[in-house]
Amino acid sequence: MTQTLPSEKPQILSFIDRLRSGDVRALARAVSLVENDAPLAAEVLSECFPFTGRALRIGITGSPGAGKSTIVDKLARHYRASGISVGVIAVDPTSAFTGGAILGDRIRMQENLGDTGFYVRSMATRGALGGLARTTADVASVIEASGKDVILIETVGVGQDEIDIVRLADVTVVVLVPGMGDDVQSLKAGVMEIGDIFVVNKADREGADRVEKEVRAMQSLATQHGDWISPVVKTVASTGEGIDRLTEAIAQMKEWLESEGRMESRRRRYWRERILEMMRQSLMRQVREHGLSDAELEAHVERVVSKEEDPYKLVPELVTRVLR
Amino acid sequence: MTQTLPSEKPQILSFIDRLRSGDVRALARAVSLVENDAPLAAEVLSECFPFTGRALRIGITGSPGAGKSTIVDKLARHYRASGISVGVIAVDPTSAFTGGAILGDRIRMQENLGDTGFYVRSMATRGALGGLARTTADVASVIEASGKDVILIETVGVGQDEIDIVRLADVTVVVLVPGMGDDVQSLKAGVMEIGDIFVVNKADREGADRVEKEVRAMQSLATQHGDWISPVVKTVASTGEGIDRLTEAIAQMKEWLESEGRMESRRRRYWRERILEMMRQSLMRQVREHGLSDAELEAHVERVVSKEEDPYKLVPELVTRVLR
Repeated sequence: MTQTLPSEKPQILSFIDRLRSGDVRALARAVSLVENDAPLAAEVLSECFPFTGRALRIGITGSPGAGKSTIVDKLARHYRASGISVGVIAVDPTSAFTGGAILGDRIRMQENLGDTGFYVRSMATRGALGGLARTTADVASVIEASGKDVILIETVGVGQDEIDIVRLADVTVVVLVPGMGDDVQSLKAGVMEIGDIFVVNKADREGADRVEKEVRAMQSLATQHGDWISPVVKTVASTGEGIDRLTEAIAQMKEWLESEGRMESRRRRYWRERILEMMRQSLMRQVREHGLSDAELEAHVERVVSKEEDPYKLVPELVTRVLR
Repeated sequence: MTQTLPSEKPQILSFIDRLRSGDVRALARAVSLVENDAPLAAEVLSECFPFTGRALRIGITGSPGAGKSTIVDKLARHYRASGISVGVIAVDPTSAFTGGAILGDRIRMQENLGDTGFYVRSMATRGALGGLARTTADVASVIEASGKDVILIETVGVGQDEIDIVRLADVTVVVLVPGMGDDVQSLKAGVMEIGDIFVVNKADREGADRVEKEVRAMQSLATQHGDWISPVVKTVASTGEGIDRLTEAIAQMKEWLESEGRMESRRRRYWRERILEMMRQSLMRQVREHGLSDAELEAHVERVVSKEEDPYKLVPELVTRVLR
């Protein structure tokens, strides 16, 4: 897609208007601008900002092969059948290589094409600045501004990057499967802390009860999220079995969040982290543009490598200079 | 361990002297200071800096259950038997929870205890600032300053965080196993880009040849690291089979790096990234201490959550103010 950019403020506004009125091309272009951190990205995000904050963001993570994309597919269909509009972001932080694989998975979802209440975006590239969690959050905002009620954010695996991504969601669904063996014991621990809802997918396989029991056992050791006890939902996503129970669990979590100011508290945490991250990014951009040239940086690197300069003394000096 | 800190410069120096002369308690304390980003961390790192840059840093990554810790164990024994001193850093970015699990794995390595040519450290906590890759790099520097010839850096899984960690190594070993099935196709792609050496562990199992073939097939698609063709080494780490071939492959990689200025080029890349990361961290610390109080940040967060303030306009304003 060629990126002919609207370069004047009135054009940005008409562009946002088109996005808001359901123009899929305008939406796709806005997402690309934000994903590539283009010069107009901040302006696009700023114009989208008033139209965000109402959608429910659902993060879905779990081991590769657990059936996350099938669950996302079935959830999206379920919501669409109830007239709820849906945006999907499929994120693969491991590599730019595998973008193709995710896109492949998504082909069956293309049946939904032509439905303006549905939009899918695959993201594999991590932005030059700020990382994939930042980009995912911003892309979610743009999709939300296009009027989607629910944003499903799916990750490929369960590394730290994925945890950072799904932490930006309102509800986090962790997908497990029977027969993962001992290998995932280490994953389960990291995952216990972020799961608002656990899904045991492929529950027609042997061992589903054991997985549920293991989750329960680990829950009894883990910190609870306030008084929310993360439910365990069994599904067979390929047949759609259990998807209704999953949407019920999500609805219950949403209700719980909306009482006693919990949603506001999550949103505060979200914006606290986002503002600090945006500052970090912006400060470094300013420093690189005005305070420390590439040539100067390279000269310092040379001297550090040859031990003529101590980086632990250099950095405070550079920072002091930039801030004065 | 209680942290009685040396608070004066002469004391720091004697502390570093003890670390350099093989005092394991001084080393453990220095590592803790750096890991916890204690006030004296920068001074400790600065004093260690002249004694770094000579050790070979070997990063070892791969799926959970691939046998990485057994390989690290066998590599450490092999090097020690040749009189080469070894430091091991076992990193688990997924969770503070699993620190125990890694430590458990390490118990058998404790047989080596009492040998001052050997030091093991498990790291599960991610520093408040700068992330785990930064902390791992700094901890490696401190261990290196204690005179270790080889630093083995082992990660639990293969997420982005692990990739960031092992990219800081001179040589990256990626461990695969037969029978991982389709689930790891997505991992393999991310991993192809960072592997200097591939190990097919548990090679006595069916399917080892197939894994090797898959690696070869993906290599033919991937960008090569200069003229280094990453070798594939088959091992059965539990019996020690193939470990000698692995150490040979590592030695060959080291030789290759040391010719034509390749090692200097890697070290330049390392310091370029480290200096920028250290600046990012230091700038934000300065901003938080002098430019933007917690109370002010919270007030902005409130206004952003209630849509009274646009974060995409706020952040540039805050940054401009801090830099003027």
